[in-house]
Amino acid sequence: MNTTDDGPRDHAGMEVLGFAECLDLAASRPVGRVAFIQDGDVQILPVNHCVHESGVAFRTADGSKLGAAMDGAVVAFEVDDIDDEHHTGWSVLIKGRADLVTDETLVARLSATAARPWSDRVPRSNWVAIHPDTVTGRRI
Amino acid sequence: MNTTDDGPRDHAGMEVLGFAECLDLAASRPVGRVAFIQDGDVQILPVNHCVHESGVAFRTADGSKLGAAMDGAVVAFEVDDIDDEHHTGWSVLIKGRADLVTDETLVARLSATAARPWSDRVPRSNWVAIHPDTVTGRRI
Repeated sequence: MNTTDDGPRDHAGMEVLGFAECLDLAASRPVGRVAFIQDGDVQILPVNHCVHESGVAFRTADGSKLGAAMDGAVVAFEVDDIDDEHHTGWSVLIKGRADLVTDETLVARLSATAARPWSDRVPRSNWVAIHPDTVTGRRI
Repeated sequence: MNTTDDGPRDHAGMEVLGFAECLDLAASRPVGRVAFIQDGDVQILPVNHCVHESGVAFRTADGSKLGAAMDGAVVAFEVDDIDDEHHTGWSVLIKGRADLVTDETLVARLSATAARPWSDRVPRSNWVAIHPDTVTGRRI
């Protein structure tokens, strides 16, 4: 199917996606990548995520340096789905403050979702939620 | 095929990949994501890349703010291939200084590779090369 949409385009000619579509697309893929600053260095890691109250959440290992580095920090989260062969696809970028989820009710609700951790071998009882300041997306 | 390898594992039980395997895997996927700091904010963007002299390189728009933000900065580059259904896959992380490629011979060599830009609609005559300080990878 050729996308012959009439949506807005950016300076590079890519279709600009709306907020709701960005979140729908982000929810359609289980794996995203979170980028953050740890000890002055840029880090980027794949995580299994779920979309939650207009943001995203993912599990991290209990007591991990990772969770500590992200707690309260502004992070960037990216999800994409790109067809190498046909050179089509989309990318969604969510930026905002990350927080360790401490509310037990919310932890239980998130844990009931399908977001499996990237590795099952360590307990991952902590959830990190990203509260978006910006949600942007592009389709080619 | 079940991976019953005997390679080293990290604290999370994931197989630790060697340098050469990381680069081979990075070369096996055309799209990666680069994370960097721009105006104090963490940014993350998908790029079509190629592996080049033990590092990676990708195109960026001529004169873009992006290229300027990355030139001389330490960036993180991630490539992965994750099978959602079987919950298997790998992720490779390359960290190091990014530089705009100014050597014309190298630009010509890179341009002859298969690394297509994410969007064809703007000229992308600039290449950014990442000179790795660390190359790490994990397989689950």
